[in-house]
Amino acid sequence: MSYARQMLDAYPGMISIDASVLARTIEALTDCAQACTADTDDDLSEPNVTEMVTCIRLCLDCVDVCTATAAVASRQREELSPAVMTPLLEACAATCASCAEECERHADMHVHCRVCAEACRRGEQASRELLAAIGS
Amino acid sequence: MSYARQMLDAYPGMISIDASVLARTIEALTDCAQACTADTDDDLSEPNVTEMVTCIRLCLDCVDVCTATAAVASRQREELSPAVMTPLLEACAATCASCAEECERHADMHVHCRVCAEACRRGEQASRELLAAIGS
Amino acid sequence: MSYARQMLDAYPGMISIDASVLARTIEALTDCAQACTADTDDDLSEPNVTEMVTCIRLCLDCVDVCTATAAVASRQREELSPAVMTPLLEACAATCASCAEECERHADMHVHCRVCAEACRRGEQASRELLAAIGS
Amino acid sequence: MSYARQMLDAYPGMISIDASVLARTIEALTDCAQACTADTDDDLSEPNVTEMVTCIRLCLDCVDVCTATAAVASRQREELSPAVMTPLLEACAATCASCAEECERHADMHVHCRVCAEACRRGEQASRELLAAIGS
Repeated sequence: MSYARQMLDAYPGMISIDASVLARTIEALTDCAQACTADTDDDLSEPNVTEMVTCIRLCLDCVDVCTATAAVASRQREELSPAVMTPLLEACAATCASCAEECERHADMHVHCRVCAEACRRGEQASRELLAAIGS
Repeated sequence: MSYARQMLDAYPGMISIDASVLARTIEALTDCAQACTADTDDDLSEPNVTEMVTCIRLCLDCVDVCTATAAVASRQREELSPAVMTPLLEACAATCASCAEECERHADMHVHCRVCAEACRRGEQASRELLAAIGS
Repeated sequence: MSYARQMLDAYPGMISIDASVLARTIEALTDCAQACTADTDDDLSEPNVTEMVTCIRLCLDCVDVCTATAAVASRQREELSPAVMTPLLEACAATCASCAEECERHADMHVHCRVCAEACRRGEQASRELLAAIGS
Repeated sequence: MSYARQMLDAYPGMISIDASVLARTIEALTDCAQACTADTDDDLSEPNVTEMVTCIRLCLDCVDVCTATAAVASRQREELSPAVMTPLLEACAATCASCAEECERHADMHVHCRVCAEACRRGEQASRELLAAIGS
């Protein structure tokens, strides 16, 4: 079992959202941030780095937004704040989607972009699942 | 002149948003993140820490969202992505507002909460100004 | 296979360190940061929060140092910089150890501290393994 | 007066280190992280991006290490932990120095690298000053 899930199960208070959805989102966004950090560096090692500039920028955005969203989601257990979580998850889904789309363009040429695209699509989906779970 | 502004002035490309608004937002959100990091620690040093729990949680959220938003804003110079920036700035304004509101409740008792509330209100306002500047 | 490992395997350049050790470190530090973020929030929900103040502070430090170390480690593949990596991994091992020690003190009372202590010990060990692998 | 300084002055406990040195370090590292975030994006906009790859990588490391060090320094007021702070500040000084050195190589050609080099040198100096103040 992941630490995200173990920590949720050990939570001393009441959890207001489905714990499986919440744990899955935290894991997916953490994985996505990690894949995008690595992909940025992979892109910088490619001979055609000039063509990877957009991919690098979007990966950097994705790291920042996924990391923040995973952290905030870890604090929204007892009392959910839709005013913050709804737009944050929307921003996160949009960043993951943009990054996935760009990575998919390079997926045939670069294995690392294919793997990163997959992590971003999971991040996007997890953000949308949590949005649905909080009724947004 | 702040580094945020100097770096914008040295930008090799075209900036699509008003550089003053962009620099002001980056500075205000960086300041807000810094104030909230310190306020979290101040709250933890208070004898009435039990009453500061909500303040600590909101400050931690504010650090995460402001840091991510300032970083993403630093990468949105040439081509703005409203699909990401609009909800991210909305989440940022909402987080800053929640944190400011809670800090204001403690402002009479704790100077650090008064100072932090001020930084959060500036962060909220800067997020809204940038939202207006990008036409959202 | 974890994304950290998949991304290392897809790396276009030469990796100067043992890829298994590097992947394990990145994963362990990411897991540790995630567990500490959750544990901070768990501690804040405990009725005896006054006794958890040191634990909260150490968890917050652990999140910051593990996140930075995992990210820098993700960029040290081709050319390792011992001047940066050696002290950073030492700081990371020390932060994980301090946090683990404090969490272990609360492990009998709070399951979340027991789980977090385990994640911190793995983070500490992984930092030391990578230190050994880079010959420091 | 900066928020870092105002928050230190409002601290409810005793501060074990010289508050001016501590505030200056937090500010310098926050500024450095901000400048490096912007410089990464500036480098990505340069036509000779292939030659800027090392600069981009070092800037990204600098953002991660400075952000973590500033945050941990904000929590080391009452009880300093030299086991963590000493290697962390050493890693921070080394990262700032490497990034400054690389940025200085491009300073004649790119104004943004000149500004970023200045922010990194200030970050390096501030890290060393705090190291001296804590007796390391």
